[in-house]
Amino acid sequence: MTEQFGGPPREQTIADIGEFGVIEAIRAIAPSARNGDDAAVLTQTTPNARFVASTDMLVEGRHFRLDWSTPQQIGAKAAIQNFADIESMGARPTAILFGISAPLSTPVRVVTGIAEGLWGQGKQCPAELVGGDVVSGDSLVISITAMGELGGLSRPLLRSGAKPGDTLIASGRIGYSAAGLALLERFGSPGAVPEQFAPLVAAHCTPEFEYRRGSTARAAGARSLTDNSDGFVVDIGAIAKSSGVTVEVDGDAIAPDELMCAAADHLGADPWDWVLTGGEDHTLLGSIPGEPPTGFRRIGQVVRSKFDAVLIDGEAPAHDSGWVSF
Amino acid sequence: MTEQFGGPPREQTIADIGEFGVIEAIRAIAPSARNGDDAAVLTQTTPNARFVASTDMLVEGRHFRLDWSTPQQIGAKAAIQNFADIESMGARPTAILFGISAPLSTPVRVVTGIAEGLWGQGKQCPAELVGGDVVSGDSLVISITAMGELGGLSRPLLRSGAKPGDTLIASGRIGYSAAGLALLERFGSPGAVPEQFAPLVAAHCTPEFEYRRGSTARAAGARSLTDNSDGFVVDIGAIAKSSGVTVEVDGDAIAPDELMCAAADHLGADPWDWVLTGGEDHTLLGSIPGEPPTGFRRIGQVVRSKFDAVLIDGEAPAHDSGWVSF
Repeated sequence: MTEQFGGPPREQTIADIGEFGVIEAIRAIAPSARNGDDAAVLTQTTPNARFVASTDMLVEGRHFRLDWSTPQQIGAKAAIQNFADIESMGARPTAILFGISAPLSTPVRVVTGIAEGLWGQGKQCPAELVGGDVVSGDSLVISITAMGELGGLSRPLLRSGAKPGDTLIASGRIGYSAAGLALLERFGSPGAVPEQFAPLVAAHCTPEFEYRRGSTARAAGARSLTDNSDGFVVDIGAIAKSSGVTVEVDGDAIAPDELMCAAADHLGADPWDWVLTGGEDHTLLGSIPGEPPTGFRRIGQVVRSKFDAVLIDGEAPAHDSGWVSF
Repeated sequence: MTEQFGGPPREQTIADIGEFGVIEAIRAIAPSARNGDDAAVLTQTTPNARFVASTDMLVEGRHFRLDWSTPQQIGAKAAIQNFADIESMGARPTAILFGISAPLSTPVRVVTGIAEGLWGQGKQCPAELVGGDVVSGDSLVISITAMGELGGLSRPLLRSGAKPGDTLIASGRIGYSAAGLALLERFGSPGAVPEQFAPLVAAHCTPEFEYRRGSTARAAGARSLTDNSDGFVVDIGAIAKSSGVTVEVDGDAIAPDELMCAAADHLGADPWDWVLTGGEDHTLLGSIPGEPPTGFRRIGQVVRSKFDAVLIDGEAPAHDSGWVSF
């Protein structure tokens, strides 16, 4: 808090401490010896390793709301959606770059809270925060680049690798994030949502993510992998399309659970909408010959077809659209 | 152009072609087999290589103006400021990620023009455009991540590597970008600036950059390197501070040239302001024992001192501030 003459104390803003003050505050939260020069230098730990990189931008009001999520939750979600892309290749996240454009009136605690959320996830990989950029702008925009290491010589887990006969696999919940979003839209704030649905709201603000499942799947011989970012049918459909196969999903294996059904009853909604089109769960989805790897469950199978289709219990799903950026 | 009933034809916007249309248009400009899955997989070409990464955000109205620069110039400048950070480590740029947040009314040609500008530079490295993100937002914000390869086992060129006795070196012009900015601010548009000063305006819209000078300097035994992004005194001062040395600059070696002096006369400005505080030239600045490497010139020397100072012809410079983000 900064004392103001004749007024209430106000929060310290990024204008108060300046660009270098903000950078120092971020570096104090996520210290890294690789951070601070023109670019970060990253050393690979595994012989023959390849490097993997992905980037995402998050815009306030479009991808997150400060009245629905804490800065820490926003940072954690930003990290997870990027690390999930690295894990989806079968790789291990090793580093993150954090760019932020923010109005000068932005409280310092918003920026440092986002950094805390990023670093809370980074520590789990472990992936260092090795650099970034802090600039002023009219709106709050976060840009995350995640990088990772693909050890050894076996192939990355592309969307195009699925083969007929593979078991279709998933790791994590499907539809929780969308259910949480629907509840927030209806009730207006996390505090107004009935307590019983708190896990759904929490999953929207920061999805659960288990690290190392991507590299586990690769080591176990998985052939394809992606994450449920745009909606189940869209994402599993991308594997079907890229691989030139049809995927047959068992409805029971992805069915909404009791909590989702209760929330849907409460809202008068169809919980299958959340499952099939929701996205943002960042559940890993893919295929493997034989049994699912540790941490994954069977959700169906891959069959040969010329139609690149997704079938659920033998039928084309009624819900087939997903998240679109615009 | 899209025909409108009863009105003039209007430009096709990103809303017209949608997220996937924009992504396809960008991929058509800068095709890469590494682009299109959850993350890009990058293979190193040199044994024992390390990976180098840096990111920058550019905000419309703050870092660029669409009435001063073409989208191609903006893309080229965004690429150069990121590739300069990679070259400053002594590394070779190999890949770029392109994130853009833009209002739905943004013409498609703005986004594809930026991609053309990025790719025009990428081709020179050569560095592929391997991925990115396209989202809608209230303002136009570009986020670039550049990655590169640091071949072999010798050290990266950190700011902290300068040693007393080193020759201070520079490659490229100093102050041109700031002179161009001053002209644009005074005359309001590139077309209104007197023709003789066109090279200065061009240098502001897209600075000149010679690729491979960073790796040349590293191969020749340079000990420190950075780029002139925030202003000469700030950037060369960062080397002095990080290395715990004083740098003695020869004023003649960085003096404004005839064109800058003529522009300064025209504007009633001091051209030394542009040289010492201007930034955005992305000229490589550093130090090496002995003679400057190919493409570099001598601009002074490094001496031992406890004061981490920058001296120009033996005096502390009168102009010592530079670009600050906010």
